[in-house]
Order: sequence, then structure tokens, then C-alpha cells
Amino acid sequence: MTSLLLEHALVDGVVSDDVLVEIEDGRLSVVRPGADSGTRVPGLTVPGLANCHSHAFHRALRGHTQAERGSFWTWRDQMYGVADRLDPDSYKVLATAVFKEMVATGITSVGEFHYLHHQPGGRPYDDPNAMGHALLAAADEAGIRIRLLDACYLSAGFGDGGMLPPEGVQLRYSDGDAEAWAERVAELPVDRTGVALHSVRAVPREQLPTVVSAGAGRPLHVHLSEQVLENEACLAAHGITPTRLLAEAGALGPMTSAVHATHLTDGDTGLLGRSRSFACFCPTTERDLADGIGPSVALARAGSRLTLGSDSHAVIDLFEEMRAVEMHERLVTMQRGHWSAAELLTAATADGHASLGFDDVGRIAVGQRADLVTLDLESPRTAGAGTSCESVVFAAASPDVRRVVVDGRLVYDGDAGAVGRALAEAIEAVS
Amino acid sequence: MTSLLLEHALVDGVVSDDVLVEIEDGRLSVVRPGADSGTRVPGLTVPGLANCHSHAFHRALRGHTQAERGSFWTWRDQMYGVADRLDPDSYKVLATAVFKEMVATGITSVGEFHYLHHQPGGRPYDDPNAMGHALLAAADEAGIRIRLLDACYLSAGFGDGGMLPPEGVQLRYSDGDAEAWAERVAELPVDRTGVALHSVRAVPREQLPTVVSAGAGRPLHVHLSEQVLENEACLAAHGITPTRLLAEAGALGPMTSAVHATHLTDGDTGLLGRSRSFACFCPTTERDLADGIGPSVALARAGSRLTLGSDSHAVIDLFEEMRAVEMHERLVTMQRGHWSAAELLTAATADGHASLGFDDVGRIAVGQRADLVTLDLESPRTAGAGTSCESVVFAAASPDVRRVVVDGRLVYDGDAGAVGRALAEAIEAVS
Repeated sequence: MTSLLLEHALVDGVVSDDVLVEIEDGRLSVVRPGADSGTRVPGLTVPGLANCHSHAFHRALRGHTQAERGSFWTWRDQMYGVADRLDPDSYKVLATAVFKEMVATGITSVGEFHYLHHQPGGRPYDDPNAMGHALLAAADEAGIRIRLLDACYLSAGFGDGGMLPPEGVQLRYSDGDAEAWAERVAELPVDRTGVALHSVRAVPREQLPTVVSAGAGRPLHVHLSEQVLENEACLAAHGITPTRLLAEAGALGPMTSAVHATHLTDGDTGLLGRSRSFACFCPTTERDLADGIGPSVALARAGSRLTLGSDSHAVIDLFEEMRAVEMHERLVTMQRGHWSAAELLTAATADGHASLGFDDVGRIAVGQRADLVTLDLESPRTAGAGTSCESVVFAAASPDVRRVVVDGRLVYDGDAGAVGRALAEAIEAVS
Repeated sequence: MTSLLLEHALVDGVVSDDVLVEIEDGRLSVVRPGADSGTRVPGLTVPGLANCHSHAFHRALRGHTQAERGSFWTWRDQMYGVADRLDPDSYKVLATAVFKEMVATGITSVGEFHYLHHQPGGRPYDDPNAMGHALLAAADEAGIRIRLLDACYLSAGFGDGGMLPPEGVQLRYSDGDAEAWAERVAELPVDRTGVALHSVRAVPREQLPTVVSAGAGRPLHVHLSEQVLENEACLAAHGITPTRLLAEAGALGPMTSAVHATHLTDGDTGLLGRSRSFACFCPTTERDLADGIGPSVALARAGSRLTLGSDSHAVIDLFEEMRAVEMHERLVTMQRGHWSAAELLTAATADGHASLGFDDVGRIAVGQRADLVTLDLESPRTAGAGTSCESVVFAAASPDVRRVVVDGRLVYDGDAGAVGRALAEAIEAVS
């Protein structure tokens, strides 16, 4: 058993002082504010953060995709270039470094939205899940909890006479049809795997239910309406929006996360909310890719719970993601106070982990997994900013994370230099 | 003479390797890429950054102003509370810590927009410039170059029958009339001081020319059209926009910086551009205060040069300010590539310093002041992101600054902890 005395800690939505936590078998067995025993941990401790939408290999693009003008679609071409060069060994090394970066920023669970399944040209590896297994092993090595969201990707988009076949690097993504995808995914460990529909562009309408069935009882994630073009093509092909297409296929529900959910009709928002689907926003990616600003407030009012992801890893900093949800609303409405700091912290913690199927993570409470992230309150950013939820969300940033515990185990002690060196080596190897 | 061999350095808008710089009397006397002598400085060195719009004391509000819903105007009430508590001694300590935070983030020149002149109630201090002198002394202690922009603030806004008199803490801001303001400002050192019109709300129309004359040949800064309400009140009072009001008073020109310039008509943009006025954007403040997104691209096309400021210090990170100009445009246009990384770096360096009246700062070139900011290229943020302008603007963040030289003198060596402790003490003292 470990006993820690947290100088300040976020408990039940407010910051308390001198919080004793006892950890047994990776879980919190005691949480008591106003205590005076235990090994003192200075700073402000918050629950582990959940990064609900990650494509680990996109990290290799940071700093390299900004040179040109252009759109989401030109960015995608560059991303495909990196995808083309990875194999299970190099991907394991790269993903380990990226997951280490996440841990160093206070992320304790990651939803890895994974679609790079097969060899160049599309032939499966000897182990058809070699790439997925590389990601699971990378998470183990970095000490992060993972939900591998294995994505079904069968088509390259809506064509005039039906769905377009995958081509080029997309051949690595495709299992041919949803049945074959489901057979492969059945070989992955259930407790660490969920399912994903890449998007309505990538899975023909009639095959959507197969994916939904295969994922029953587990998290189902899907890119939804990130781009206006996707909406237009779906409407042209089927006469309904992507959200309604998913709803009719039974893909919405309390285990589903709609990722981005940027360009929605009021009807879409209602469908997502009433089905209690999560809405996973990735604000730093959405601004980098010029996607637009999704209706986070309307989705929450309709019944969806907000979660957050760093997606393309242009930035890995969930503090910035939390802030950005509110800041983007402010920019376009010219009003403050759409999301409270406490609500944004819930999105980044309890609701985020829940959307990954981890219901016992994300709160500092008895019975929860012991995921503890401690922030320095005397950094140039946080000094003088107080010890409230507001100081966490609106003053802190990823470099203020000094100590990270996952399942009771210390996985980061502040050595950011080691994380940087691992990233530099791994990215060099695939560049 | 000092000889440094910069591993990578931004010279003439591109990153070169192995750049020898020699420093004599605080200036660069040699700049030679591809060299092999000198004391090696690892990392990527960029010119010193210019923070063109600062209200140092706002730093005390970070983390404390987010708890309520509300608008710019409710935020302003909280800001006035801190203003009410400061005196020359406590302000010197606070500003020293804030300027140290700036230095630690790579800022080598600051434009301190200063309006907290007098004692509570409005009586001048024995030294009528005691507060201004406190700011100059704070800059010296922190090792930052300062342009003290002494602001004329005479009225509380547009009223039905003329301008409203200052009240409450605003009494500390007012010199009574522009003549008295000018007499006071004449006692400040010309080489470190510029002038400011707080806004068209705060200086009656007929007194604007007095401020303009007093500042002739020196930088003149003015808050312009940050809020829609200001525009409406100005139109109601005078039948013209704030920009046109300034133009008619002779306040626009190549030594003028229009701060914010958010809500402009096409006519306003043309007036600012044709007069070659600078447009100083403060994106992290503008999003925090829900101001809206100004027309940076249109202003640049019209002839204005962009500069940047951290203003309210919700964040002090000019890398984030650079990025945010582009990101905000992306969010509302759904296109990438409005501002190149090189253009944003020019805004944050050469053009920024120029807007503060420092024409010989902001480039790594022979004859320039030796302001050198070195970034760690193996941090969790920068690792693998390359050595281009894009990696500086789109991957780096303030914690990546490891070494800062101003006028050839090392003023920051990476000890962020000392900066944080100074801030914590100084803010505690005024809270």
C-alpha cells in the first residue's frame, strides 16, 4: 500500500488541500482531505487525463505540414506519405515515443484510432494484427492505458456509381469488407480494444451494421462531419446527413464517440444528444486543419458528453484542448463563459475515460484506478494563478506536469529531456 | 568581443547551420553561416521577440478571472480591483517578475502600455512619474528593453452630453487634460518612452492632437476598436468610426500602432494601411476576452505591418500569439495558409521592435543589437519537428526557450524555477 499526501487535489469537482490518498492494487482505497500523514506531494494533483482521439504516427508530421497553403486534403496527402513508410517495428518505436510524450503531459489513457493495418499494397502481415499489436506493446512500454480503436476502412469516398475503391496507401487500411475486418479484430484482446468506423466515406452504408455488431458492448468511435465536403458527398449519395446515416445503421449510442462533429444540422445535434453519444472535440487539430468550430454547447445541451483528443498531434496538450473549446466559442460569439473550467476538466478526465470504456478512471475517489497527475504551481505559467479548476484549465500547460501515476505506478517523474530524445530518434528513423 | 557558433540560426528569413556571430558593444559585428569557430550554442537561435502590447499588472489576474460568465466589461471590473491596490514599490516588484517571465519566453523588447499614473483618488505622487519610473527600473532589473508607452487617459467614455469624467480607480489614470499629461510625460527619458492614447473613449476628440504632437517622432500606440460597443458609442457621438477620428486628429502614421484593430470597416482598414500604421494583434487576449477576430490579412494587404502583444498576460508566449493569428483565420475561413511562418516571425521580431521605435533590433544581421533567443530542438514539443521557420512557429512554445541574450548580455539561462518563484511572491504581495 502507498500513502500520499497531496498538497492540493481536485476531488469531487473542487480543489481540496492536504488530501491523503491510499493506493492498493492500483486503486484508490482512501481519499481524505485535510489529512496530515503520507508522503507529501507538492503541487496540484488532478485525475489522469484521457486523450480520446489519437493517430500516433501523425506526430511525425509536426512542424513539417505548415509550409504550404492549402486545405485539409493537401495535409492528408502528406500524412499518407508517412503512413506509407511505417512497418510494425518502426511503428512500435514511434508510437512508444509518442505515448511517452502523452504521459509526460498528464495523459493516462489513450484512444488510438488505428487504421494502418496491412503491408504496402494491402497484403496482411503474417500476424494480420501486427500493427495493432505494435501499438498495444508501445502503450505498455510507455506506461499508458490504451483503448485500441481498430478502424474499418474499406472505401476511398463517395463516387458517382457507388463507393470508390481504396488506392495507394489506402490499400494498407482496407480489409476488403466488413466481415473480414471483423474476423481480424476478433483476434485482438477485448479488454483493450474497441472498434471504429473510419467515417461514412470509408465504409459503405450496407456494411455499417456489421461493424456496429462487432463492437457491441465496446466503444465505437467514428470521424463525423469534420469537413463540409463529406456532408455534401453523403447527401448527394444517400440524401441524408452522415449523422443520420449512422443513426439508421444503429451506430449511435452511449458507447459511441462522434469525433469532431463539426458541421452538423440541428437534426444531427439532436440525434447525437438523444442517443447519448459522446462528442469528441480535437480543437488544436481542428484549427490546424481549418476544419471550423463545432457546436459543443448545443451538443451538450442536447445530451452528448464532451470529450477531447489531440488527434493529429500538432500539439499534445490537453490543457490547451480544454481551453480551446471555450476560447473558440468566445471568438465567434463574443461572449465568455460557455464552458466552466470544472466542466472542461470533466470532459478531459471522467467523461473522456468513460468514452474509452474505462468507467473506473478519471476521478480522485475511492474505488477508482489510481491515475494521478501533479502540476507545478510555481512555474512561469502557473505562479500566482491560484489553486482552482480555473488555474488548471486557463493557466497551466503541458510542461507544468511534473509527476504522473497510472494504476498506482509512477510512469513520469519530470524528465522531459528523455521524452524529447526518444521522439527525436523515432521520428528521424521514419523520415 | 564574444564569438558564438549557433548550431542553427534564423538569418535573412531562413534557418542556416553553424552560424558564427561576433558581438561587440552589444551589437552583431559578424554573422557568417557555415563557420566552425566560436563557442557552440546548440539548438535553434532566433532574433529576440518583441512584445508590443503589455499591461504588466494584468498578470496578477491570470487564473482568477475565469470563474464567472460575462463579457469584456465584467473582466475589466476585476482588473480595476488589482489596479487599485498597486503603489510604485509593489508595482516595481510585480513588473520585475512579469518582465522576467517575458525574458524567459524569448521576449527582448516590451512595449509597456502604461496608464496607472497617480495615487488612489488621483493625486500625483511626489514624483509624478513614480509609477513610470518603477516600470523602467523593473525592466532594467529583468534585463528587458522597454518602450514605456505613457497613456493619456482623461475620460471614462462617451456620454450623452460629452465625455464622461473618470471615476473610481480611473482617477489614478487621469492627468486632468492632455496638456498636463504632456508636461508630465516630458520629464520621462525620451529614448525609452513613447506615447499612447488609451482609446478614443478615454481622450476627448479636441485633445487628441495635443497627444499626437507630444509624441512626434516617437511611437504612438492606441487601443482601437477592440469592442463593438466602442465603435457604436463613437459613431453616436461623432458620426465617424474610431479609426477615422484618429485619422482626422493626425494620429495615424508609420510610428503609430493600432492595438487590436478588431472591428473595422473596409474604410478603417484602408486608412490604417495607407498611413502605414502598424496593427498590433493580441490573439490570446482577444480570445480570452471574447473580442472577436480582427482582419489581419486585409490590414496587411492594405499596407499595415503586423505586430504582436501578450496584452493581459492570460498567456505569455509569443509562439502561441504567432500561431494564433493564423489559426484564428483558419477557424473562420476553413482554409490554411493565410500567414506563412516566416511572415509571422517577422511580425514577432523585426516589425515588432520597429513599432516600438527600435529599428536596429530583431534580425540576426551585422549592425543589429545582439538579441538572441535559443530554442531547445529536443523537447517533447520540438523533437522531430525540424529546423525551419515552421517548426519555430507551429511546434515550439515558450518553455522551449533555453537561453536569451539582450544587447549581447546573457539574461536568461533556462532557470524557469527562479522566474516562477519571483512571480509567486510578487503576486501574493498584491493579492
